[in-house]
Amino acid sequence: MGRASARRKVLKVDLSGTAAVTRDRPDTLAAEEPLEIRVGPAGGKRPPLAVTMRTPGDDIDLAVGFLLTEGIITGADDVVLAQLCAGTNEPNQYNVVDVQLAGHVAPPVTDPSRNFYTTSSCGVCGKASIDAVRVKSRFDLDADRTAVDAETLIGLPDALRAAQRTFETTGGLHAAGLFTPDGELVCVREDVGRHNAVDKVVGWAARNGRLPASGLVLMVSGRASFELVQKATLAGIPMLAAVSAPSTLAVELATETGLTLVGFLRGRTFNVYSGRERITLPGSSAGGA
Amino acid sequence: MGRASARRKVLKVDLSGTAAVTRDRPDTLAAEEPLEIRVGPAGGKRPPLAVTMRTPGDDIDLAVGFLLTEGIITGADDVVLAQLCAGTNEPNQYNVVDVQLAGHVAPPVTDPSRNFYTTSSCGVCGKASIDAVRVKSRFDLDADRTAVDAETLIGLPDALRAAQRTFETTGGLHAAGLFTPDGELVCVREDVGRHNAVDKVVGWAARNGRLPASGLVLMVSGRASFELVQKATLAGIPMLAAVSAPSTLAVELATETGLTLVGFLRGRTFNVYSGRERITLPGSSAGGA
Repeated sequence: MGRASARRKVLKVDLSGTAAVTRDRPDTLAAEEPLEIRVGPAGGKRPPLAVTMRTPGDDIDLAVGFLLTEGIITGADDVVLAQLCAGTNEPNQYNVVDVQLAGHVAPPVTDPSRNFYTTSSCGVCGKASIDAVRVKSRFDLDADRTAVDAETLIGLPDALRAAQRTFETTGGLHAAGLFTPDGELVCVREDVGRHNAVDKVVGWAARNGRLPASGLVLMVSGRASFELVQKATLAGIPMLAAVSAPSTLAVELATETGLTLVGFLRGRTFNVYSGRERITLPGSSAGGA
Repeated sequence: MGRASARRKVLKVDLSGTAAVTRDRPDTLAAEEPLEIRVGPAGGKRPPLAVTMRTPGDDIDLAVGFLLTEGIITGADDVVLAQLCAGTNEPNQYNVVDVQLAGHVAPPVTDPSRNFYTTSSCGVCGKASIDAVRVKSRFDLDADRTAVDAETLIGLPDALRAAQRTFETTGGLHAAGLFTPDGELVCVREDVGRHNAVDKVVGWAARNGRLPASGLVLMVSGRASFELVQKATLAGIPMLAAVSAPSTLAVELATETGLTLVGFLRGRTFNVYSGRERITLPGSSAGGA
């Protein structure tokens, strides 16, 4: 409980030799536990707003980042207090975060017309219609003149992997990291859910006075979905780089908001889907439009 | 719209040679669009229950599988009609599925105490407390005597990948496939969300009279989370095999429900986390407990 990994017994089977080899031995697994986020005014009722399956650790950052990237708060000033709480009749006091909103913040809408839920790993939940999937950011990325050298960019995946403490032992965690344009790591977080890893980074930035996170690059270990692009824009991050593929909607939102979106960042190659003006390329031997 | 992939312009950067090479060219991306699922009685109001970001295609299967693995329905007989609908004032008629429940099915609870949402890629959403994250299955896996040969098992990842139509062109889709104990592919589905890929497979099974899906193996391209184990148990699938790592809670739920859970199924090796009795191993040269 409260740990990023745990040991479990496992049967390891290897059929690669002439005879099958089986061994019983303990293995380290990435921890996954539900986190309930309760939100409301400091002096009032704070009902459960969400349950997310996450890897324990940095739970306050996760809760604050979640509320920020859902558009419920716009910064750490909107939160009076966020704490892990025991609650009432709760068997696990580490799996509930209680968030007290400042008086000027409207609590999340919970009227019956918004009564639904989702299993999607997306940032679009809690909206009563498809038209409302997009959360507007208060930060304007167009004004962000961040410039990242292509050589620096291709070094980020290795730097992110090197900073992952738990992945090495479990092979089971996504990572998100904030980097300066010079490739210096500012913050890294791991989670079984890539959206949670990003929320933890965004929550950290909010709670450390780093919003908008202008001038920084968000590097993620997996793919780039609509959700991750939306989370980046809501934190004012001008560039999102992913090891794997983006989706159509991720590219569309990045283009619309002025975010630089990089995918398939592997080895010494990458693709730029939007906002190429922030990437400084060396003298190139060929070029398109 | 309604397509699993789409072409977008991309700047490809290659720094591996002595001079940087950049090219502008179209690339194929995995499509991602929101799907709203509306649920209610045939003759009554059917409010939105969930919005999930998914790859268009097999949307009826997705909706039915989602309702089944959330415990709202127990089989296709609980659904009178499920259809893509235009609705009212909807700009995109392909992104809403309207599900009419049979008279004997209780509609999803939407009282104010359950007013919350989540971004988790999990099957535990819509529950008003952590205590309720587990959905009980009506199928008893303990009675399932499925036996899969280890040699057959290690062939499943390649068979799954070979059946993925869209991944090859986009590099951006998760896959879920149902296989017989002999390694024959029964159904394969792709999606930007791995939970959606599994829901599509489960929905297909429900709508084709294959529930409980006893005697079958569910193979997934990514990791094994709590959510995926829960979805397998609710469909009566006795074995879940994943290319990557399971989480702690996935192993705990598999052990509790009697599901066989295989992870790190790569090359000629794999790990068995629970239910090893369903895997037929060749004469092994060593063994543990």
